[in-house]
Amino acid sequence: MKYLFTSILGSFVFDDHLSIIDEGTEKTLSKKYPQLIPLPPKKVPPALGAFKEQKYRRQFYKKNVELTKKAVKGSVSEDQLIIQTIANIDELDKICNVLTKRLREWYGLYYPELRVGNNEKYVELVLEGKRRTAMGADLGKVHVEEMKTLANEIQRLMRLRKTHESYLKTVMEAYCPNLLELAGATIGAKLLERGKGLKHLALLPASTIQLLGAEKALFRHLKTGAKGPKFGILYHHQLVQKAKPSVRGKAARMVADKLSLCARLDYFKGGSKAKEYRKELEEKLR
Amino acid sequence: MKYLFTSILGSFVFDDHLSIIDEGTEKTLSKKYPQLIPLPPKKVPPALGAFKEQKYRRQFYKKNVELTKKAVKGSVSEDQLIIQTIANIDELDKICNVLTKRLREWYGLYYPELRVGNNEKYVELVLEGKRRTAMGADLGKVHVEEMKTLANEIQRLMRLRKTHESYLKTVMEAYCPNLLELAGATIGAKLLERGKGLKHLALLPASTIQLLGAEKALFRHLKTGAKGPKFGILYHHQLVQKAKPSVRGKAARMVADKLSLCARLDYFKGGSKAKEYRKELEEKLR
Repeated sequence: MKYLFTSILGSFVFDDHLSIIDEGTEKTLSKKYPQLIPLPPKKVPPALGAFKEQKYRRQFYKKNVELTKKAVKGSVSEDQLIIQTIANIDELDKICNVLTKRLREWYGLYYPELRVGNNEKYVELVLEGKRRTAMGADLGKVHVEEMKTLANEIQRLMRLRKTHESYLKTVMEAYCPNLLELAGATIGAKLLERGKGLKHLALLPASTIQLLGAEKALFRHLKTGAKGPKFGILYHHQLVQKAKPSVRGKAARMVADKLSLCARLDYFKGGSKAKEYRKELEEKLR
Repeated sequence: MKYLFTSILGSFVFDDHLSIIDEGTEKTLSKKYPQLIPLPPKKVPPALGAFKEQKYRRQFYKKNVELTKKAVKGSVSEDQLIIQTIANIDELDKICNVLTKRLREWYGLYYPELRVGNNEKYVELVLEGKRRTAMGADLGKVHVEEMKTLANEIQRLMRLRKTHESYLKTVMEAYCPNLLELAGATIGAKLLERGKGLKHLALLPASTIQLLGAEKALFRHLKTGAKGPKFGILYHHQLVQKAKPSVRGKAARMVADKLSLCARLDYFKGGSKAKEYRKELEEKLR
C-alpha cells in the first residue's frame, strides 16, 4: 500500500513502514502512483515521526514564518487606517488649542486688544497683521515675524485636520457607506475606534453602541449606583443635538438602533439603506 | 499771594482763597506771575477741593488712562518675549513627540520594519518613501500620501523649533549676552523663565539659581526629609553633563555661581566676561 499525506510543506507518499518515499504536489503524485490512498487518520501520528528530520524542521520553520508574514500583511484593514486617522484628528485638535493659546498670550504682548473667540479666526487675523492698538508694545519686525511663523504653522495644522477628515470620508465611502451616511465621518470613525473595528461593531448590541465613549460614566454607575449615562459619542450626533434635552436619551437610543443596523449592512455588504433610516429618524424625532 | 501747583493735568495758579485763577505750563506761568511761590504742603489738601469740578474729573480720568496705557505699553520687555518663545519650544517638543509616535504607529501598518530611534530621522525616511518590507500591507497611494502629509507637518514643526531657537539667540545676544554665552540659548531662556525675568534672576542668590527647575524635589526634600536636589535646569548644562556623576552637584554649584554673575553683568550692563568664566570653569572642572 502507498499513502498520500499533505502538509504545508507539500504532498508526500508513505510506504507501508510509514517512511517517506516520494514528495511533490498532490496532482503529480496521484499520476505517478495510481493506487495512492489518503493516509488514514489512525496512522497520522506515527507517520509524523518521519518529519523529525533536521531538513524538514527547517522547511517547516521557513514555511511558518512565510505564512505568518502573509497573515500579518493581510491583517491590516481599513479599520486600522480609520482608527489611526481619527486618533490623529483628536490629537491635532488638542495641539491646535494649545498652540493657539500660546499664540494669544504671545501676540497679546503686541496687540492685546485683539480678542476673537474663534481660534481659526484669531490665527487668520494674526497673519493679516493689521493692528490698531493703544496698549500693545511696539515690537520690531523680527519679533512679530516670529509670532506669525507660529500662526502660519497653526493654520497648516488646522488644514491638516480638514485633510484628514476628507480622507476619512474617502476611506469610509468604500468601506462603510451606511455608517458614514448616518453618523458622519467623525462620529462614524469614533464609533469604529471605540467599537474596535467594523466587524466587532456590527456584532455589538445597539444598547452598547449607544454608550460607546461613556465607559467612565457607565462604570461609575455600576459601581456607585450614580445615574447611568444616556449617550457617549452619540451625544454629538446631529439628530441627538437637535432633540429637546428631555428626550435626548431616547433619541440616542433610536440613533444607536439604526447605526447598529448600518454597521451590519456595511459588514455583510447588504446594500445602502442609511438614507431611509435618516428620514425615518427625522420623522420620528420631529 | 499767588501759589503754583503742578499735577498730571499741568500747572495751576491759586490765589489766597485757594481757587484756581490760571493754568498752563510751569514755564509760562512763572513768567506771567513773577512772584509765584510753590503751594506749601499744608495748603495742598484744601487746594485739591478746587479739582472736584466735573471738568477736572474728566480730565483726570482721561490722563490717567493715557498714562496707564503708556505704562502697559512700556512694560513689555525682552523677558516676556524670551519666556513666550522658550515656553513654545517646550510645547513644540512635546507635540513633535506625540505626533511622531502617532506616525510610527500609522506608518507601521505600511512599513513595520522601519525602526529608527531618532524621531527626526524617522520622519525623513517616511518622506523619502523607500520601502523594503515583507510584512507591511500594500496600501494604495491615497493612504500612504495621507501619512506623508502628517510627516511633512511634523518636519515643519521641528524646523519651527529651530527657528525659535535662533530667534532666541538674536534676542538674547542684545539683552543678556553673558547669560547666553555661558548657559546657551535654551538653558539661558529657561533660567529667565523660571527666574521671572532678568532683573529678578540677577537678584537671586546663586544657590537658588542652582535649583531653578527642581522645585518639586526641593519641596519634597523640605517636607519629607528626602534627599535634596543638586540641580534643576542646570542638569542639562554642558559643563555639568561633562563632569563625573560624583561631582555633578559641585559642578552645578560652580556653574550657578558664574551664571549668577552673568545675570548681574547683563542686568547692570557691566560688559562681557562670560568667556573668561567659561575658561575658568573648564579648567577647574578638568
